[in-house]
Amino acid sequence: MKISVEGKPREMRALWYDAGKVVMIDQRLLPSEFRLVTFTKCSEVAASIKDMTVRGAPAIGVAAAYGMLLATRDGSELEAAGRLLKSTRPTAHDLFYAVDFMLDAARSGRDPEEAARSYADSIVDKCRKIGEYGEPLIKDGANIMTHCNAGALATVDYGTALAPMRAAWNKGRKMFVYVSETRPRLQGMKLTAYELLNEGIPHAIIPDGASGHFMRKGVDAVIVGADRIAANGDFANKIGTYEKAVLAKELGIPFYTAAPISTFDFSIEDGTQIPIEDRSEDEVTMIDGHRIAPQGCRALNPSFDMTPNRYVTGIITEIGIVKPNEVGKVRRMLQ
Amino acid sequence: MKISVEGKPREMRALWYDAGKVVMIDQRLLPSEFRLVTFTKCSEVAASIKDMTVRGAPAIGVAAAYGMLLATRDGSELEAAGRLLKSTRPTAHDLFYAVDFMLDAARSGRDPEEAARSYADSIVDKCRKIGEYGEPLIKDGANIMTHCNAGALATVDYGTALAPMRAAWNKGRKMFVYVSETRPRLQGMKLTAYELLNEGIPHAIIPDGASGHFMRKGVDAVIVGADRIAANGDFANKIGTYEKAVLAKELGIPFYTAAPISTFDFSIEDGTQIPIEDRSEDEVTMIDGHRIAPQGCRALNPSFDMTPNRYVTGIITEIGIVKPNEVGKVRRMLQ
Repeated sequence: MKISVEGKPREMRALWYDAGKVVMIDQRLLPSEFRLVTFTKCSEVAASIKDMTVRGAPAIGVAAAYGMLLATRDGSELEAAGRLLKSTRPTAHDLFYAVDFMLDAARSGRDPEEAARSYADSIVDKCRKIGEYGEPLIKDGANIMTHCNAGALATVDYGTALAPMRAAWNKGRKMFVYVSETRPRLQGMKLTAYELLNEGIPHAIIPDGASGHFMRKGVDAVIVGADRIAANGDFANKIGTYEKAVLAKELGIPFYTAAPISTFDFSIEDGTQIPIEDRSEDEVTMIDGHRIAPQGCRALNPSFDMTPNRYVTGIITEIGIVKPNEVGKVRRMLQ
Repeated sequence: MKISVEGKPREMRALWYDAGKVVMIDQRLLPSEFRLVTFTKCSEVAASIKDMTVRGAPAIGVAAAYGMLLATRDGSELEAAGRLLKSTRPTAHDLFYAVDFMLDAARSGRDPEEAARSYADSIVDKCRKIGEYGEPLIKDGANIMTHCNAGALATVDYGTALAPMRAAWNKGRKMFVYVSETRPRLQGMKLTAYELLNEGIPHAIIPDGASGHFMRKGVDAVIVGADRIAANGDFANKIGTYEKAVLAKELGIPFYTAAPISTFDFSIEDGTQIPIEDRSEDEVTMIDGHRIAPQGCRALNPSFDMTPNRYVTGIITEIGIVKPNEVGKVRRMLQ
């Protein structure tokens, strides 16, 4: 992705591995500060997933793969390292997928660095394919709405939900993107707007509650990411996604989620079985270290919600756009 | 309403008139600071409406009535004072209603102080009646959702949307209130949670985007306020209201708006004619004086949205619960 560092444009991934070190952009500080952080231990990578230095399902998966690679280098017991990584966050499926991928690689005697690198490269490659399959959905002059950040920062590079926008933009198509700010952590305002600004794609930040207002005014498609997709096409994504799906159905607007196949969890039949992470209420009641809510008031902070398959027009993947009722076919194809 | 001032419980209105002065709670500072501000000129009251020291459609109406009263005392030209007050904010109908009420009072030679006081008292009285008509909607143990602040702070005392909750609570009924925080200005988190805390009513603050998640989990009724209600029952209210209305319909949850008849604008046929105020994008991109959004990114900040009548189960008023298709009957009844 394009990133402006001290005013100079650079091409960069959200995280990478270099000579025994995992390097990542600290996404908690963007956009006000660009800082790279470096880890040499698996436990540090696990902490970086938990504290959201790195976030976004595919990027969490790659961080976990690199974490497993660090574990092979410091002599840690791999199964234990995998358990530690899997315990960091409960919802994103890529985390579990990536740990199992590295455990399989170790069992088959594959070089761990090659395995982790190839995992990361394959995610970026899949995102580019998601862009290719998704870009025809964005007609010239389209108004698109997205939520949270399913861009390069969430996926190592290129993005899932943002991939079709990048691809259409790179083909010269004009568009306008409504970015819902995504309380409580504001990943839409802080990260997606930042990526779109860096790419030069016209956009505006809106409060989450204004989504329906602007969808009724004229949105041609809603495209969001996914943290876990069940075997029936139900999916979990950042809190606020379900509301946009219901509004899109009510208003006749196509509603897409974009994700690599690593986000599919074929082991669960439907979305009710996806664990939803509850995070600290301080994320809601405090902003920038200051308490905003009255002292003594409680808050609820589910990090994700679940969107039933009936609201989903299609799932944009690296093998094409899959209808929710075709997920079973994909599963059989992969077996 | 109950307000805790320096740890001591007090009974207080959101604004009042006392010996040539209009006194109001500065609602921009709550809940972190309780401060009363005092105005002696109509222009100061107009500024206090514009800068949202006082907000909420019925409270804005009362502030305007008091502003007109100050104008009669400082020898201002009343029609000009009315125009100034009407220019402060475009959406809430009570503002226009109250100015016209005071102009009519002046024309008929009514004592302006008596007229303004009676306007304020009648609003509080109407809110109590809204509470009486609305409280049977809240069964013992109900989960209720509200949005923004349509409480005592928004209505001088008692509230519109919060009135049925106060009334049911005072009758000993248990309930739990989901308070959506209401970005960008967070009136839900800052003001509604504060009022519920002061009353002792159990509640939790949620991000606006979590409304659908919790409505699906189990909400028995959604009750919100209104800034202007058209002749066909369409209504404008704080941005984010329309989304809750659509979700309520999708999930089969009763959806009510609560407002005095002064919020009805019978002169407009439907909600598409209600002017929607666009406020500064800084309200979205900055929090507590700090810029959160990337430098160079734009935001859109419509302060209200419009909910079509087909989503409205009923309008809780001081004359009973009115169905949207009965608004015409109310109009004829009042004529």
